[in-house]
Amino acid sequence: MSNIKSIAELQVILKSALKEASFVPKPAELYDPISYILSLGGKRLRPALVLMATDMYGADINAAIPQAVGIELFHNFTLMHDDIMDAAPLRRGQTTVHEKWNTNIGILSGDALFVKAYQSIVKADPKHLVALMDLFNQTALEVCEGQQYDMNFETQERVSMSEYLQMITFKTAVLLACALKSGALVADASAKDQQHLYDFGIHIGLAFQLMDDILDVYGSQADFGKQIAGDILCNKKTCLYIKAYETASAEQLEILDYYFASVNFPAKEKIEKVMDVYAQLNVQSLCKEMMDTHFAIAQKHLQGLEVSEDRKATLQEFAQLLMVRVN
Amino acid sequence: MSNIKSIAELQVILKSALKEASFVPKPAELYDPISYILSLGGKRLRPALVLMATDMYGADINAAIPQAVGIELFHNFTLMHDDIMDAAPLRRGQTTVHEKWNTNIGILSGDALFVKAYQSIVKADPKHLVALMDLFNQTALEVCEGQQYDMNFETQERVSMSEYLQMITFKTAVLLACALKSGALVADASAKDQQHLYDFGIHIGLAFQLMDDILDVYGSQADFGKQIAGDILCNKKTCLYIKAYETASAEQLEILDYYFASVNFPAKEKIEKVMDVYAQLNVQSLCKEMMDTHFAIAQKHLQGLEVSEDRKATLQEFAQLLMVRVN
Repeated sequence: MSNIKSIAELQVILKSALKEASFVPKPAELYDPISYILSLGGKRLRPALVLMATDMYGADINAAIPQAVGIELFHNFTLMHDDIMDAAPLRRGQTTVHEKWNTNIGILSGDALFVKAYQSIVKADPKHLVALMDLFNQTALEVCEGQQYDMNFETQERVSMSEYLQMITFKTAVLLACALKSGALVADASAKDQQHLYDFGIHIGLAFQLMDDILDVYGSQADFGKQIAGDILCNKKTCLYIKAYETASAEQLEILDYYFASVNFPAKEKIEKVMDVYAQLNVQSLCKEMMDTHFAIAQKHLQGLEVSEDRKATLQEFAQLLMVRVN
Repeated sequence: MSNIKSIAELQVILKSALKEASFVPKPAELYDPISYILSLGGKRLRPALVLMATDMYGADINAAIPQAVGIELFHNFTLMHDDIMDAAPLRRGQTTVHEKWNTNIGILSGDALFVKAYQSIVKADPKHLVALMDLFNQTALEVCEGQQYDMNFETQERVSMSEYLQMITFKTAVLLACALKSGALVADASAKDQQHLYDFGIHIGLAFQLMDDILDVYGSQADFGKQIAGDILCNKKTCLYIKAYETASAEQLEILDYYFASVNFPAKEKIEKVMDVYAQLNVQSLCKEMMDTHFAIAQKHLQGLEVSEDRKATLQEFAQLLMVRVN
């Protein structure tokens, strides 16, 4: 048996590392929101990916903790600012920072949290610092670009599938990829393995996001924990929506245009009518195929790693868990 | 004669360095605001300070350009976010980013610009990178803290002079200090000189901000280029305001409280009445004394540098220019 660490073990390590990264300095208005958003939890999957990648190569995971913590702090910074931009009232079932305090505090605490992310990353072994920073900076910019595309899509009349995939790559997938590659970098993995892990992260991230779109409409409410078909109600341009528009007849287009022209329809009617068209066009299966394709590509990259199979077990387990929505 | 570069020469170098740092990638909504705010100009004093410090030691200023550019990008990032928080319509006489586009774009472009600052800094010689990053991160956090204190002061009933000095230290002075110390770091100056330059930056920054407060009320409009006594009209807690409250009699307090209770007084009446009290209390001279004290401390730190006098000429000139408001 290999002695690689389980996801649960890594999460215990991360919990204490993030505790050390929290702080009680003044002014409270700046730092309380940071402690608050970190206290909302989440599964800490991104930092766990950093440690998993390092651990897979038998390297000391302690060397990867600054990067893991930095990536989790960055992720929380993006949540804080995204919630302002999306005017979101809730995050993980709790009041968002800008609602609990105000928008200015959300902006400024987010900025401070972003600095905290860099303060963690700079603790890396200097021999890896430039490579880690270059990767992280590039990723951070792409995450901003992804968020901008996502906002643009709200008012953009037609969004192509390739534009959509580009957006979710930047908004979601690159940070998973960055986490994995960072862990591999710290472990001095080969450039080829680093790239495989990066690509694994991209495609598992895409598969995950496509699953998210499908489950919003076709998942049972209990499994999914939020309002069913919320994406349809708020006219969100998801994979299903785009696939439907790509393949609809003139008559079906008319129905889609009618119901997606406003959010002021009775929910039940709107969902039923849109789902009728989705069913006629078979968009659930078409999107599931896309998801399966990306999942399969991710698996290929995992297989390509120059690491014994038993050391891939945790990452394999992660991929499975992610796809059954344990996130 | 020494061959150190003049401020004008350094600004030519910076202009081209910042041009190279600008970009035209997509999405335009994310990057256009960055190009826009950088195009508004400003005297580029902070990056010039980086280069001046490096040049003073006869080191290659090219080695300091990434840090200089990074600090200027960071400064513009803070302007973009501060303008949102302050609901400012104008910056350098032009429409602010959040007014020209919208708040979400101001937030997200600012975030991207912050990443761009780090992308520049990471180009430093790896042997200096950790020290430069530690200094920059610490400074960036303090700038956030300064902005938070400044916002807190708006609703805080009493602000002490020491709280005020702490706020302007963080909001304004530390970035000048960071710029100078960064330049010295790149030039491998002694730790003692690095500290002298840092302290020079702090005290010249404080002197500058105190002068700014004084000129708002006592500068002639032509010299100063903005509405006279705007600080009084909007009840801003400046050095003059705080000094007046510190020393006012019960009767004078009543007048101050009356006029500072609202912004809805006829401008002329409010300014006259408040300036009457300021004159009785001699706050102009008292604040000028504080300013002179910090300017003198700054000069002491300049004298303390282990560098020949002729190599200090540009920094000396900078200090003089700053205090006559050529900024």
